[in-house]
Amino acid sequence: MTEILMEPIARLASELRSTLDAPKQGDEGGADAWLEFAPGYAEGLTGVRTGDSLVILTWLHEARRDFLTVHPRGDANLPMKGVFATRSPHRPNPIGLHSVQVLDVVQGRLKVGPIEAIDGTPVLDVKISLRSDE
Amino acid sequence: MTEILMEPIARLASELRSTLDAPKQGDEGGADAWLEFAPGYAEGLTGVRTGDSLVILTWLHEARRDFLTVHPRGDANLPMKGVFATRSPHRPNPIGLHSVQVLDVVQGRLKVGPIEAIDGTPVLDVKISLRSDE
Repeated sequence: MTEILMEPIARLASELRSTLDAPKQGDEGGADAWLEFAPGYAEGLTGVRTGDSLVILTWLHEARRDFLTVHPRGDANLPMKGVFATRSPHRPNPIGLHSVQVLDVVQGRLKVGPIEAIDGTPVLDVKISLRSDE
Repeated sequence: MTEILMEPIARLASELRSTLDAPKQGDEGGADAWLEFAPGYAEGLTGVRTGDSLVILTWLHEARRDFLTVHPRGDANLPMKGVFATRSPHRPNPIGLHSVQVLDVVQGRLKVGPIEAIDGTPVLDVKISLRSDE
């Protein structure tokens, strides 16, 4: 199939420095972090306000892309499953899906949390939530 | 920032042929459709069952990528907003986010619904839902 090319719109600045520090999901101990938008994309933030709920799509740049089956939650006691039946970061297109709250808005930057992605993670897209727990 | 290259894992086969037929969101009249996986990715479906709730990430290949502001829901009476404050398909990286139910599982194919993406839409990722309404 035709390949698809994306340019990140932003990058995550977080105190989580390594996937070893990161929880499996944001609500399991994710950190507050800043989304720092590339200058050419900051206009797309118009209307985003403190207190909004957002869905953040990231590129999990340290994930393995050559796994089609994994032990769920990395637990070797659980039987192997197809990656599409799990939330493993390891998958052919390792796109992270994060539900966060906006904690602060500064020109070209959003403070959000909680998010389990690590420092330096590229951000592909940001969407307003349709539901509070999406 | 560094560009990112993805290969679709599957393609959507739907009776919705045009974005003119498609509702804004799946729960506003989306169709049942088949996800047809590329042969090299079908193993990743192991463990997906009829009745499961999934999140589907698609590539909205007919969307405009050069818009940073839009009228929400395409309504010219609503004031312009940044695309990241909306669910518009038009955005720098037009990734569609769809919450669906699995209706049938056949070797290398999943019947899912409701989904508002059109026939031929490339699929980037599939994840099991963490919550029923995610």
